[in-house]
Amino acid sequence: MEYTKPLAQLIEFFQKFPGIGPKSAQRMALHLLKMPESEVKNFANTMVEAKQHIHYCKICFNMSASDPCEICSDDRRDKSVICVVAETKDLIAIEKTHEYKGLYHVLQGTLSPLDGIGVEDIRIKELLNRITDTDINEVILALSPSVEGEATSMYISKLLKPFNIKISRIAFGLPIGSDIEFADEITLAKAIEGRRLID
Amino acid sequence: MEYTKPLAQLIEFFQKFPGIGPKSAQRMALHLLKMPESEVKNFANTMVEAKQHIHYCKICFNMSASDPCEICSDDRRDKSVICVVAETKDLIAIEKTHEYKGLYHVLQGTLSPLDGIGVEDIRIKELLNRITDTDINEVILALSPSVEGEATSMYISKLLKPFNIKISRIAFGLPIGSDIEFADEITLAKAIEGRRLID
Repeated sequence: MEYTKPLAQLIEFFQKFPGIGPKSAQRMALHLLKMPESEVKNFANTMVEAKQHIHYCKICFNMSASDPCEICSDDRRDKSVICVVAETKDLIAIEKTHEYKGLYHVLQGTLSPLDGIGVEDIRIKELLNRITDTDINEVILALSPSVEGEATSMYISKLLKPFNIKISRIAFGLPIGSDIEFADEITLAKAIEGRRLID
Repeated sequence: MEYTKPLAQLIEFFQKFPGIGPKSAQRMALHLLKMPESEVKNFANTMVEAKQHIHYCKICFNMSASDPCEICSDDRRDKSVICVVAETKDLIAIEKTHEYKGLYHVLQGTLSPLDGIGVEDIRIKELLNRITDTDINEVILALSPSVEGEATSMYISKLLKPFNIKISRIAFGLPIGSDIEFADEITLAKAIEGRRLID
Protein backbone atom coordinates (compact mmCIF):
# COMPACT_ATOMS: atom_id res chain seq x y z
CA MET A 1 0.00 0.00 0.00
CA GLU A 2 1.01 3.58 -0.63
CA TYR A 3 -0.06 6.47 1.56
CA THR A 4 -3.53 7.71 0.69
CA LYS A 5 -2.79 10.58 -1.72
CA PRO A 6 -3.48 13.74 0.32
CA LEU A 7 -1.49 12.20 3.18
CA ALA A 8 1.47 11.53 0.87
CA GLN A 9 1.43 15.17 -0.25
CA LEU A 10 1.24 16.39 3.32
CA ILE A 11 4.19 14.25 4.38
CA GLU A 12 6.16 15.50 1.40
CA PHE A 13 5.62 19.11 2.50
CA PHE A 14 6.66 18.47 6.08
CA GLN A 15 9.82 16.77 4.82
CA LYS A 16 10.95 19.99 3.16
CA PHE A 17 11.71 21.51 6.54
CA PRO A 18 15.26 21.31 7.88
CA GLY A 19 15.77 18.53 10.40
CA ILE A 20 12.50 16.78 9.48
CA GLY A 21 13.06 13.29 8.09
CA PRO A 22 10.46 10.87 6.72
CA LYS A 23 9.48 9.52 10.15
CA SER A 24 9.00 12.93 11.77
CA ALA A 25 7.14 14.15 8.69
CA GLN A 26 4.76 11.20 8.90
CA ARG A 27 4.21 11.78 12.61
CA MET A 28 3.49 15.48 12.06
CA ALA A 29 1.10 14.76 9.18
CA LEU A 30 -0.86 12.16 11.17
CA HIS A 31 -0.97 14.53 14.14
CA LEU A 32 -2.35 17.24 11.90
CA LEU A 33 -5.10 14.92 10.65
CA LYS A 34 -6.16 14.31 14.23
CA MET A 35 -6.55 18.04 14.95
CA PRO A 36 -10.04 19.57 14.66
CA GLU A 37 -10.67 21.05 11.21
CA SER A 38 -11.00 24.55 12.67
CA GLU A 39 -7.50 24.34 14.11
CA VAL A 40 -6.02 23.07 10.86
CA LYS A 41 -7.61 26.02 9.04
CA ASN A 42 -6.30 28.35 11.70
CA PHE A 43 -2.79 26.99 11.26
CA ALA A 44 -3.05 27.27 7.47
CA ASN A 45 -4.20 30.89 7.75
CA THR A 46 -1.47 31.74 10.24
CA MET A 47 1.11 30.41 7.81
CA VAL A 48 -0.14 32.37 4.83
CA GLU A 49 -0.63 35.55 6.85
CA ALA A 50 2.80 35.34 8.44
CA LYS A 51 4.32 34.92 4.99
CA GLN A 52 2.32 37.88 3.64
CA HIS A 53 2.98 40.24 6.53
CA ILE A 54 6.56 39.49 7.45
CA HIS A 55 9.13 41.19 5.29
CA TYR A 56 12.73 42.20 5.60
CA CYS A 57 13.34 45.45 7.47
CA LYS A 58 14.64 47.96 4.94
CA ILE A 59 17.30 49.16 7.39
CA CYS A 60 18.74 46.01 8.99
CA PHE A 61 17.12 43.14 6.96
CA ASN A 62 15.69 41.50 10.06
CA MET A 63 12.41 39.65 9.41
CA SER A 64 9.51 41.65 10.80
CA ALA A 65 5.84 42.47 10.35
CA SER A 66 6.71 46.17 10.69
CA ASP A 67 9.16 48.18 8.59
CA PRO A 68 11.45 49.44 10.02
CA CYS A 69 11.50 46.45 12.35
CA GLU A 70 10.78 46.56 16.08
CA ILE A 71 14.47 46.89 16.89
CA CYS A 72 15.34 49.62 14.40
CA SER A 73 12.34 51.67 15.51
CA ASP A 74 12.96 51.24 19.25
CA ASP A 75 14.23 54.52 20.74
CA ARG A 76 15.82 52.76 23.70
CA ARG A 77 18.33 50.91 21.52
CA ASP A 78 21.85 52.27 21.15
CA LYS A 79 21.96 53.46 17.54
CA SER A 80 25.74 53.82 17.51
CA VAL A 81 26.49 50.07 17.51
CA ILE A 82 25.67 47.54 14.79
CA CYS A 83 25.97 43.81 15.37
CA VAL A 84 26.42 41.96 12.07
CA VAL A 85 24.85 38.49 11.90
CA ALA A 86 24.33 36.02 9.06
CA GLU A 87 20.67 35.09 9.60
CA THR A 88 17.57 36.17 11.50
CA LYS A 89 17.95 33.11 13.74
CA ASP A 90 21.31 34.44 14.94
CA LEU A 91 19.72 37.80 15.77
CA ILE A 92 17.03 35.99 17.75
CA ALA A 93 19.66 33.98 19.63
CA ILE A 94 21.51 37.17 20.62
CA GLU A 95 18.29 38.95 21.60
CA LYS A 96 17.47 36.08 23.94
CA THR A 97 20.60 36.83 25.99
CA HIS A 98 19.14 40.30 26.84
CA GLU A 99 22.76 41.50 26.88
CA TYR A 100 22.93 43.52 23.71
CA LYS A 101 21.15 46.86 23.32
CA GLY A 102 22.44 48.07 19.95
CA LEU A 103 21.19 47.57 16.39
CA TYR A 104 21.72 44.66 14.00
CA HIS A 105 22.52 44.04 10.40
CA VAL A 106 21.38 40.71 8.99
CA LEU A 107 23.58 39.79 6.03
CA GLN A 108 21.23 37.01 4.94
CA GLY A 109 24.04 34.64 4.28
CA THR A 110 27.79 34.33 4.40
CA LEU A 111 30.33 34.42 1.59
CA SER A 112 30.62 30.94 0.16
CA PRO A 113 32.22 30.77 -3.29
CA LEU A 114 31.62 27.02 -3.48
CA ASP A 115 27.87 27.59 -3.16
CA GLY A 116 28.05 30.51 -5.55
CA ILE A 117 27.36 33.08 -2.83
CA GLY A 118 29.45 36.16 -3.48
CA VAL A 119 29.65 39.72 -2.21
CA GLU A 120 26.65 40.84 -4.25
CA ASP A 121 24.42 38.11 -2.85
CA ILE A 122 24.51 39.21 0.78
CA ARG A 123 23.73 42.58 2.34
CA ILE A 124 27.28 43.98 2.59
CA LYS A 125 26.69 47.03 0.40
CA GLU A 126 23.72 47.99 2.57
CA LEU A 127 25.91 47.71 5.67
CA LEU A 128 28.45 50.10 4.15
CA ASN A 129 25.66 52.54 3.30
CA ARG A 130 24.40 52.47 6.89
CA ILE A 131 27.88 53.22 8.19
CA THR A 132 28.32 56.01 5.68
CA ASP A 133 24.92 57.57 6.34
CA THR A 134 24.53 57.25 10.11
CA ASP A 135 26.69 57.83 13.13
CA ILE A 136 28.14 54.44 13.98
CA ASN A 137 30.90 53.96 16.58
CA GLU A 138 31.30 50.20 16.61
CA VAL A 139 30.55 47.21 14.42
CA ILE A 140 30.47 43.83 16.16
CA LEU A 141 30.95 40.88 13.83
CA ALA A 142 28.89 37.98 15.18
CA LEU A 143 29.37 35.36 12.49
CA SER A 144 29.85 31.68 13.28
CA PRO A 145 33.41 30.38 13.57
CA SER A 146 33.11 28.38 10.33
CA VAL A 147 35.20 28.77 7.17
CA GLU A 148 32.48 30.90 5.60
CA GLY A 149 31.94 32.93 8.77
CA GLU A 150 35.66 33.61 9.09
CA ALA A 151 36.01 34.62 5.44
CA THR A 152 33.00 36.94 5.65
CA SER A 153 34.30 38.52 8.86
CA MET A 154 37.71 39.13 7.32
CA TYR A 155 36.19 40.61 4.20
CA ILE A 156 33.90 42.98 6.08
CA SER A 157 36.57 44.08 8.53
CA LYS A 158 38.84 45.03 5.62
CA LEU A 159 36.06 47.01 3.98
CA LEU A 160 35.33 48.83 7.23
CA LYS A 161 38.90 49.82 8.02
CA PRO A 162 38.81 53.16 6.17
CA PHE A 163 35.78 54.26 8.24
CA ASN A 164 37.89 54.56 11.37
CA ILE A 165 35.34 52.97 13.72
CA LYS A 166 35.74 50.22 16.28
CA ILE A 167 35.43 46.75 14.74
CA SER A 168 35.13 43.77 17.06
CA ARG A 169 34.32 40.08 16.89
CA ILE A 170 32.46 38.03 19.44
CA ALA A 171 34.72 35.79 21.52
CA PHE A 172 35.34 32.16 20.65
CA GLY A 173 36.44 29.78 23.37
CA LEU A 174 35.21 27.15 25.76
CA PRO A 175 31.45 27.07 26.28
CA ILE A 176 30.40 27.73 29.88
CA GLY A 177 29.97 24.49 31.81
CA SER A 178 32.26 22.54 29.50
CA ASP A 179 35.41 20.70 30.43
CA ILE A 180 38.89 21.50 29.10
CA GLU A 181 39.62 17.79 28.86
CA PHE A 182 36.87 17.27 26.31
CA ALA A 183 37.22 20.50 24.31
CA ASP A 184 38.32 20.00 20.71
CA GLU A 185 41.75 21.28 19.79
CA ILE A 186 40.65 24.15 17.60
CA THR A 187 38.30 25.55 20.26
CA LEU A 188 41.00 25.19 22.88
CA ALA A 189 43.53 26.95 20.63
CA LYS A 190 41.03 29.78 20.10
CA ALA A 191 40.45 29.99 23.85
CA ILE A 192 44.19 30.35 24.54
CA GLU A 193 44.65 32.82 21.70
CA GLY A 194 41.72 34.88 22.98
CA ARG A 195 42.84 34.90 26.63
CA ARG A 196 42.16 38.05 28.65
CA LEU A 197 44.16 39.65 31.43
CA ILE A 198 42.62 39.43 34.86
CA ASP A 199 42.50 42.90 36.36
CA MET B 1 12.85 41.94 21.86
CA GLU B 2 9.96 39.54 21.37
CA TYR B 3 9.30 37.70 18.14
CA THR B 4 7.43 39.84 15.64
CA LYS B 5 3.79 38.81 16.23
CA PRO B 6 2.89 36.62 13.24
CA LEU B 7 6.18 34.79 13.73
CA ALA B 8 5.36 34.13 17.39
CA GLN B 9 1.99 32.68 16.38
CA LEU B 10 3.60 30.51 13.73
CA ILE B 11 6.18 29.14 16.16
CA GLU B 12 3.42 28.40 18.65
CA PHE B 13 1.58 26.29 16.06
CA PHE B 14 4.65 24.30 15.10
CA GLN B 15 5.32 23.59 18.77
CA LYS B 16 2.00 21.76 19.05
CA PHE B 17 3.38 18.85 17.04
CA PRO B 18 4.85 15.87 18.87
CA GLY B 19 8.62 15.93 19.07
CA ILE B 20 8.86 19.61 18.06
CA GLY B 21 10.42 21.76 20.78
CA PRO B 22 10.87 25.55 20.79
CA LYS B 23 14.13 25.44 18.79
CA SER B 24 12.79 23.17 16.04
CA ALA B 25 9.58 25.19 15.90
CA GLN B 26 11.56 28.40 15.40
CA ARG B 27 13.68 26.79 12.72
CA MET B 28 10.61 25.50 10.87
CA ALA B 29 8.85 28.87 11.10
CA LEU B 30 11.87 30.77 9.77
CA HIS B 31 12.25 28.21 7.00
CA LEU B 32 8.61 28.69 6.05
CA LEU B 33 9.08 32.46 5.84
CA LYS B 34 11.92 31.93 3.38
CA MET B 35 9.74 29.83 1.06
CA PRO B 36 8.08 31.58 -1.91
CA GLU B 37 4.56 32.75 -1.09
CA SER B 38 3.07 30.40 -3.69
CA GLU B 39 4.63 27.42 -1.94
CA VAL B 40 3.39 28.53 1.48
CA LYS B 41 -0.13 28.83 0.04
CA ASN B 42 0.23 25.43 -1.53
CA PHE B 43 1.26 23.91 1.78
CA ALA B 44 -1.63 25.63 3.58
CA ASN B 45 -4.11 24.31 1.01
CA THR B 46 -2.65 20.82 1.15
CA MET B 47 -3.14 20.82 4.91
CA VAL B 48 -6.75 21.92 4.81
CA GLU B 49 -7.61 19.62 1.91
CA ALA B 50 -5.97 16.61 3.52
CA LYS B 51 -7.95 17.30 6.68
CA GLN B 52 -11.19 17.66 4.72
CA HIS B 53 -10.72 14.62 2.49
CA ILE B 54 -9.14 12.10 4.80
CA HIS B 55 -11.59 10.25 7.00
CA TYR B 56 -11.69 6.99 8.83
CA CYS B 57 -12.52 3.96 6.71
CA LYS B 58 -15.93 2.72 7.84
CA ILE B 59 -14.72 -0.88 7.78
CA CYS B 60 -11.25 -0.86 9.33
CA PHE B 61 -10.88 2.75 10.65
CA ASN B 62 -7.70 3.35 8.72
CA MET B 63 -7.25 6.99 7.67
CA SER B 64 -7.96 7.36 3.98
CA ALA B 65 -9.25 9.70 1.32
CA SER B 66 -11.48 6.91 0.01
CA ASP B 67 -14.09 4.94 1.93
CA PRO B 68 -13.70 1.99 2.15
CA CYS B 69 -9.96 2.62 2.26
CA GLU B 70 -7.44 1.48 -0.37
CA ILE B 71 -6.70 -1.69 1.59
CA CYS B 72 -10.28 -2.76 2.31
CA SER B 73 -11.23 -2.21 -1.33
CA ASP B 74 -8.19 -4.02 -2.78
CA ASP B 75 -9.27 -7.38 -4.25
CA ARG B 76 -5.76 -8.80 -4.00
CA ARG B 77 -5.78 -8.65 -0.20
CA ASP B 78 -6.60 -11.75 1.80
CA LYS B 79 -9.99 -10.95 3.35
CA SER B 80 -9.84 -13.85 5.81
CA VAL B 81 -7.17 -12.31 8.04
CA ILE B 82 -7.42 -9.17 10.16
CA CYS B 83 -4.41 -7.57 11.77
CA VAL B 84 -5.43 -5.45 14.76
CA VAL B 85 -3.30 -2.34 15.39
CA ALA B 86 -3.67 0.62 17.76
CA GLU B 87 -3.04 3.52 15.37
CA THR B 88 -2.77 4.33 11.66
CA LYS B 89 0.98 4.78 12.08
CA ASP B 90 1.28 1.13 13.12
CA LEU B 91 -0.63 0.05 10.02
CA ILE B 92 1.75 2.12 7.89
CA ALA B 93 4.77 0.53 9.59
CA ILE B 94 3.46 -2.97 8.85
CA GLU B 95 2.57 -2.06 5.25
CA LYS B 96 6.15 -0.90 4.72
CA THR B 97 7.41 -4.43 5.39
CA HIS B 98 5.46 -5.68 2.31
CA GLU B 99 5.05 -8.94 4.23
CA TYR B 100 1.40 -8.80 5.18
CA LYS B 101 -1.38 -9.22 2.63
CA GLY B 102 -4.48 -9.36 4.84
CA LEU B 103 -6.80 -6.66 6.16
CA TYR B 104 -6.43 -4.40 9.19
CA HIS B 105 -8.48 -3.10 12.05
CA VAL B 106 -7.30 0.18 13.59
CA LEU B 107 -8.52 0.38 17.18
CA GLN B 108 -7.63 4.06 17.44
CA GLY B 109 -6.13 3.63 20.85
CA THR B 110 -5.43 1.06 23.52
CA LEU B 111 -7.25 0.39 26.77
CA SER B 112 -5.81 2.71 29.40
CA PRO B 113 -7.98 3.15 32.50
CA LEU B 114 -5.58 5.74 33.92
CA ASP B 115 -6.16 7.98 30.90
CA GLY B 116 -9.88 7.25 30.99
CA ILE B 117 -9.78 5.15 27.82
CA GLY B 118 -12.16 2.24 28.20
CA VAL B 119 -13.68 -0.41 25.97
CA GLU B 120 -16.25 2.00 24.53
CA ASP B 121 -13.59 4.51 23.47
CA ILE B 122 -11.78 2.27 21.02
CA ARG B 123 -13.08 0.29 18.04
CA ILE B 124 -13.48 -3.11 19.71
CA LYS B 125 -17.22 -3.43 19.12
CA GLU B 126 -16.67 -2.76 15.41
CA LEU B 127 -14.03 -5.51 15.33
CA LEU B 128 -16.50 -8.00 16.82
CA ASN B 129 -19.09 -6.98 14.24
CA ARG B 130 -16.63 -7.58 11.42
CA ILE B 131 -15.84 -11.04 12.73
CA THR B 132 -19.51 -11.83 13.13
CA ASP B 133 -20.50 -10.54 9.71
CA THR B 134 -17.64 -11.70 7.50
CA ASP B 135 -15.64 -14.87 7.03
CA ILE B 136 -12.51 -14.37 9.14
CA ASN B 137 -10.04 -17.21 9.82
CA GLU B 138 -7.38 -15.44 11.79
CA VAL B 139 -6.94 -12.32 13.89
CA ILE B 140 -3.36 -11.14 14.42
CA LEU B 141 -2.92 -8.85 17.42
CA ALA B 142 -0.17 -6.35 16.59
CA LEU B 143 -0.23 -4.10 19.62
CA SER B 144 2.93 -2.74 21.22
CA PRO B 145 4.43 -4.72 24.12
CA SER B 146 3.48 -2.01 26.64
CA VAL B 147 1.20 -2.36 29.67
CA GLU B 148 -1.71 -0.92 27.66
CA GLY B 149 -0.92 -3.00 24.60
CA GLU B 150 -0.75 -6.19 26.69
CA ALA B 151 -4.02 -5.43 28.47
CA THR B 152 -5.80 -4.65 25.21
CA SER B 153 -4.46 -7.84 23.58
CA MET B 154 -5.62 -9.94 26.52
CA TYR B 155 -9.03 -8.33 26.51
CA ILE B 156 -9.58 -8.80 22.79
CA SER B 157 -8.30 -12.38 22.76
CA LYS B 158 -10.80 -13.28 25.51
CA LEU B 159 -13.63 -11.67 23.58
CA LEU B 160 -12.65 -13.56 20.43
CA LYS B 161 -12.38 -16.99 22.00
CA PRO B 162 -16.04 -17.97 21.43
CA PHE B 163 -15.66 -17.29 17.69
CA ASN B 164 -13.41 -20.32 17.25
CA ILE B 165 -10.90 -18.63 14.93
CA LYS B 166 -7.11 -18.48 15.04
CA ILE B 167 -5.85 -15.69 17.29
CA SER B 168 -2.17 -14.84 17.17
CA ARG B 169 0.17 -12.15 18.42
CA ILE B 170 3.22 -10.76 16.66
CA ALA B 171 6.49 -12.06 18.10
CA PHE B 172 8.45 -10.13 20.70
CA GLY B 173 12.16 -10.76 21.05
CA LEU B 174 15.56 -9.43 20.09
CA PRO B 175 15.57 -6.94 17.25
CA ILE B 176 17.59 -8.11 14.23
CA GLY B 177 21.16 -6.83 14.37
CA SER B 178 21.12 -6.39 18.14
CA ASP B 179 23.40 -8.02 20.67
CA ILE B 180 22.25 -10.40 23.43
CA GLU B 181 24.73 -8.77 25.79
CA PHE B 182 22.96 -5.42 25.54
CA ALA B 183 19.35 -6.61 25.40
CA ASP B 184 17.23 -5.57 28.37
CA GLU B 185 16.08 -8.35 30.67
CA ILE B 186 12.40 -8.20 29.77
CA THR B 187 13.09 -8.43 26.05
CA LEU B 188 15.49 -11.29 26.61
CA ALA B 189 12.95 -13.10 28.79
CA LYS B 190 10.33 -12.65 26.03
CA ALA B 191 12.80 -13.95 23.46
CA ILE B 192 13.43 -17.10 25.48
CA GLU B 193 9.76 -17.59 26.23
CA GLY B 194 8.91 -17.18 22.53
CA ARG B 195 11.64 -19.52 21.28
CA ARG B 196 10.85 -21.66 18.24
CA LEU B 197 11.93 -25.16 17.33
CA ILE B 198 14.37 -25.41 14.44
CA ASP B 199 13.03 -27.86 11.91
